[in-house]
Amino acid sequence: MILGHGDDAFRFDRPIRANFSSNVYSHVDLSQLKEHLASHIDVIGNYPEPEPYRLEAALAKRLGIDASSVCVTAGATEAIYLIAMAFSGSRSAILQPTFSEYEDACNLHGHTVEETDFSRADLFWFCNPNNPDGYVMPKEAVISLIKAHPITIFVIDQSYGFFTREPLLSPAEALRYPNVLQLHSMTKRYAMPGLRLGYVTGDPELLDKLRAVRMPWSVNALAVEAGLYLAERPDTAPIDLDALLSEAQRLRDALNGIPDINVDPTQTHFMLCRMQKGRAALLKDWLACERGLLIRDASNFKELDEGCFRIAAQTPEENDMLVDAIREWQQLQQ
Amino acid sequence: MILGHGDDAFRFDRPIRANFSSNVYSHVDLSQLKEHLASHIDVIGNYPEPEPYRLEAALAKRLGIDASSVCVTAGATEAIYLIAMAFSGSRSAILQPTFSEYEDACNLHGHTVEETDFSRADLFWFCNPNNPDGYVMPKEAVISLIKAHPITIFVIDQSYGFFTREPLLSPAEALRYPNVLQLHSMTKRYAMPGLRLGYVTGDPELLDKLRAVRMPWSVNALAVEAGLYLAERPDTAPIDLDALLSEAQRLRDALNGIPDINVDPTQTHFMLCRMQKGRAALLKDWLACERGLLIRDASNFKELDEGCFRIAAQTPEENDMLVDAIREWQQLQQ
Repeated sequence: MILGHGDDAFRFDRPIRANFSSNVYSHVDLSQLKEHLASHIDVIGNYPEPEPYRLEAALAKRLGIDASSVCVTAGATEAIYLIAMAFSGSRSAILQPTFSEYEDACNLHGHTVEETDFSRADLFWFCNPNNPDGYVMPKEAVISLIKAHPITIFVIDQSYGFFTREPLLSPAEALRYPNVLQLHSMTKRYAMPGLRLGYVTGDPELLDKLRAVRMPWSVNALAVEAGLYLAERPDTAPIDLDALLSEAQRLRDALNGIPDINVDPTQTHFMLCRMQKGRAALLKDWLACERGLLIRDASNFKELDEGCFRIAAQTPEENDMLVDAIREWQQLQQ
Repeated sequence: MILGHGDDAFRFDRPIRANFSSNVYSHVDLSQLKEHLASHIDVIGNYPEPEPYRLEAALAKRLGIDASSVCVTAGATEAIYLIAMAFSGSRSAILQPTFSEYEDACNLHGHTVEETDFSRADLFWFCNPNNPDGYVMPKEAVISLIKAHPITIFVIDQSYGFFTREPLLSPAEALRYPNVLQLHSMTKRYAMPGLRLGYVTGDPELLDKLRAVRMPWSVNALAVEAGLYLAERPDTAPIDLDALLSEAQRLRDALNGIPDINVDPTQTHFMLCRMQKGRAALLKDWLACERGLLIRDASNFKELDEGCFRIAAQTPEENDMLVDAIREWQQLQQ
């Protein structure tokens, strides 16, 4: 899917003053990283490594695993497309509703996509915490599934793994199982989606299949530079996760207090809101054009309807502004 | 092919002081572009447009064609892989020796690859000027071929199009033919291969097939920013092409003066050198380790042998240094 994702401020003429529409928490202090990149801008003058091996080694060291178990990609999105290509023609099961790119990538590469019968799947895709609802599949349940289906390859997108206190399978733990690929995003943790940087961890034999279909130089030199910087300094741009998660719960309570809105329980900083009568597309346009607030119309997620939208918690002031604006829009509808 | 391309300074511990190994002419003044990017580093904080439409429109305006005839990609390399994927399973003819990624991409996507019989090809790939030898197929010959084979799709890689005085089919002229896709590289002209920025021009219906298999956000936000800057200011980082091409001919003459070396005629700034007895891999390692000079071992191009290497002309001083060093190595071999 090209259009219909979040962070689409480019669609509106009016400047956006608060952005709830992608799952990026944008209030992190990236000044050190930006200074580092600005002072290393010369790296654009050379090709990046065809395979970003130095960065793979640096990430592996931080994760306590071998470099052969790390495959760096141009965002988690490239990882999704590489996996779908490497296993083209497979039977894939996808837990819906979720990020649409799993299914798009599977369709592009001739997979048969199942949504109900997971028992015969070659690949089982899920997002943990899940986009758009913030649900986290418990770690023990994940391990049981993996063990119960040793022939199935589990593609677990942990792009939002940093943003939950629920226990998750770590890359080192996941390596006990030869049938697991985990997707990770540098974009989400460090609020730098413009750079395109993610990675896959998992069994080296599975990763070799991805490397075999990867084009050279797919990860740009500034993304590699940022990755090397952050692998050495993972505490750059600190986030007070407890505060963010508690603010997300406060925002959820406030939204639940608006008539006609129900918010799904969430175990992360973003949440899925459902309106019985209102249309998310209209709400989104009104918020963007009249208030400069950007939300994600979630009606194009599978199994969701036209009343659904997704919000990632930002600062308390911005969240209050959003709640007030939605309440105002609701009143205008009556 | 992941390893075996040029610009592989990362393979050597010793710093490289002059780089002849990629076809990038690196002595251009990129300070304005770098300053612009450094002062716009904030763009990493948002997703790029899923499809880089604003940049496509800006490039189209400069080229005097419609935006629907431009498809921006993460370097010309992504364009090659998108074309191979969009026409998967086709019969492809590739004029050898040439850039290896055409064949790699075709193989990845199940093409039947022909090297001798071009008459029944669904796709005909060639590079103009050609990598590695700098040969330019005359414009009239290109037009005759295109007209004579209206069912065949011509994939013409003009990544080095700026670097020749030979007439080439312009994007606007190529649009007269519905069976032509032209590849262009911002990397080569502006010496910024680290950013990953290229584009395809051609018939909108053909480009729609590429867009249909393109993943979202494949072009990073800094590449888009650079592209927008350069589309408005194409004369940034000027190159005195006449001086560069005449220096390339001087370098060719000097190399031809070394015993055992013959250099193919070239119509651009890079050239293919052939040794009868010496091995390019050994020469390359010696030049890198002993003199800090990087060349491209060209023995892994199809139809070329272990004596072949490729050089892109740089400054007269650097070129002289290279000629002297190669002469010295030749004497050590005796």
